[in-house]
Amino acid sequence: MKAIKVKQPGGADQLQVVDYEKPTPKDGELLIKVMAAAVNRTDIVNRQKSSGYLKNPILGVEVAGIVESAGAGTKTSVGTRVMGLVNGGGYAEYVVMPDDRAIEIPENLSFEEAAAIPEVFLTAYQTLFWIGQLQAGETVLIHAGGSGVGTAAIQLAKQLGQAKVITTAGSNEKLEVCRSLGADVCINYKEQNFDEEVLKETNNQGVDLILDFVGSSYWDKNYASIKVDGRWVLIGILGGAVIEKLNLMDLMLKRIQLTGTLLTPRSDEYKAELTTDFFSKTKELFRHNKLRPIIDCVYPLNQIQQAHEHMESNRNIGKIVLKVD
Amino acid sequence: MKAIKVKQPGGADQLQVVDYEKPTPKDGELLIKVMAAAVNRTDIVNRQKSSGYLKNPILGVEVAGIVESAGAGTKTSVGTRVMGLVNGGGYAEYVVMPDDRAIEIPENLSFEEAAAIPEVFLTAYQTLFWIGQLQAGETVLIHAGGSGVGTAAIQLAKQLGQAKVITTAGSNEKLEVCRSLGADVCINYKEQNFDEEVLKETNNQGVDLILDFVGSSYWDKNYASIKVDGRWVLIGILGGAVIEKLNLMDLMLKRIQLTGTLLTPRSDEYKAELTTDFFSKTKELFRHNKLRPIIDCVYPLNQIQQAHEHMESNRNIGKIVLKVD
Repeated sequence: MKAIKVKQPGGADQLQVVDYEKPTPKDGELLIKVMAAAVNRTDIVNRQKSSGYLKNPILGVEVAGIVESAGAGTKTSVGTRVMGLVNGGGYAEYVVMPDDRAIEIPENLSFEEAAAIPEVFLTAYQTLFWIGQLQAGETVLIHAGGSGVGTAAIQLAKQLGQAKVITTAGSNEKLEVCRSLGADVCINYKEQNFDEEVLKETNNQGVDLILDFVGSSYWDKNYASIKVDGRWVLIGILGGAVIEKLNLMDLMLKRIQLTGTLLTPRSDEYKAELTTDFFSKTKELFRHNKLRPIIDCVYPLNQIQQAHEHMESNRNIGKIVLKVD
Repeated sequence: MKAIKVKQPGGADQLQVVDYEKPTPKDGELLIKVMAAAVNRTDIVNRQKSSGYLKNPILGVEVAGIVESAGAGTKTSVGTRVMGLVNGGGYAEYVVMPDDRAIEIPENLSFEEAAAIPEVFLTAYQTLFWIGQLQAGETVLIHAGGSGVGTAAIQLAKQLGQAKVITTAGSNEKLEVCRSLGADVCINYKEQNFDEEVLKETNNQGVDLILDFVGSSYWDKNYASIKVDGRWVLIGILGGAVIEKLNLMDLMLKRIQLTGTLLTPRSDEYKAELTTDFFSKTKELFRHNKLRPIIDCVYPLNQIQQAHEHMESNRNIGKIVLKVD
């Protein structure tokens, strides 16, 4: 089968289409004929380092496709249209997926749309609700509102969380999309100091929850933007990882809960439980288009280098999808 | 009435006995004839800075005494022996206390013993259970095991939490007391690297929860000692506040929840709720001496300078109490 491997740790030019052995499902696993996959930041990290998160030499952590065969002890029938997280191997014509994280694709969604759902919606859901404990009526600050996780988080915070959403992005075009998804306050971080806007919008109290994909370059402004007793969830370091001279007393005075998280390296059990909880709450919302995957563009699998370069240029609004079949 | 005020922000020599107006209880407040108070680190911080946590010019955040009179809408009867947190003013012959955080003193406890309970036990309880979410069978690392909060936390983690307790202290005498309170593993941090001992004792997994009173000087060793998905509660900076270079990716890779907290500046509602929850779970344990305040020494009120110096020398094991009447 066709699959994408990394030649040497490095840039997008190291991605190559290879012929690879079709995987065999073990007990509890499904073999999926992949129709679409999607690109994630974790794939870029894996490409750049020899030691990725996953043991699978083929990149890709999410797919949508059709169940081709099933190992012992599985519940999903052959022929079912499914989407879900995989333990690497998504950039390929076939991949195995644990049965307990395969979700039947709602009829109104195409394979390309379905492939754009698992990673970003599960990350956003985990971050907002399992870790961030977002409550109705609270205010959440979502950075990178135009990113895949950003577009998912804005929708979930409104539809499931009944929260007030403040979001930041670097272009008015991105902010228009954020607004259309329900964001209440949209801040262009290139034109405004987001902390000042946040304080204006929250009666100088700050927000209850921050979804932080940015890290060090936003650190001081995030600190200024958070409420006393606020929760701050760290899920990316697009703006750098190192904080020079962190004063712990600041965390104590504002009584901040700062939590770091990553989804990809978590256990199979965790991913299965998260998937089940998430789709029990959102299936009907997807079916009625109240939640929708935001797709920036679709590349054929053999244009994987362009797809990665597109993500690295930060121009995309929503997901970059790979059409496999 | 006699009370202790700070002349100028500074050392223990700035503490002086003054004659001060006896306070009057408002609606919902009790006037307490103070029999004993206790010294806390927060008092030292208040003494050193002109801007303390509290508006009350008299130091002291906890007392035990007798209800002398009561404002409208209170439930506690005049003559009741009570202990509890006050909004400053504890180092005095009389103080007002919100009725909803006054706890009737169990008959088996003296006023000196009762005055040694509220601040450290409530702090330990809040930190272990409300913030730290300690579960039975988990392992908790409690630093400064010989301190007031340390001695309370060891007992609570064993008696209420059914947890495995690893504790650190700087003398074998302190560690003996920790062991007698139920600590499972006692580490002399001057003789051993506590992180190495923690990893040995946890099968290289690390602990589920850290109670950190120390801050920057223990930072790297605490990081090495914590489990993936561990909780780390920051409640003191005895070893310094500033981390020179914090790498946020470290927090993400171990998926750490780091929470800063302080008790004294929290709201009246929070303190009332915490007090009620705590004493509903511990009243019988105090009554049967399964939980017990650990008292290092008792000073008369007019030896307040010596009492502060004693705490600042870090030699005390458990609480330093002030006998007022």
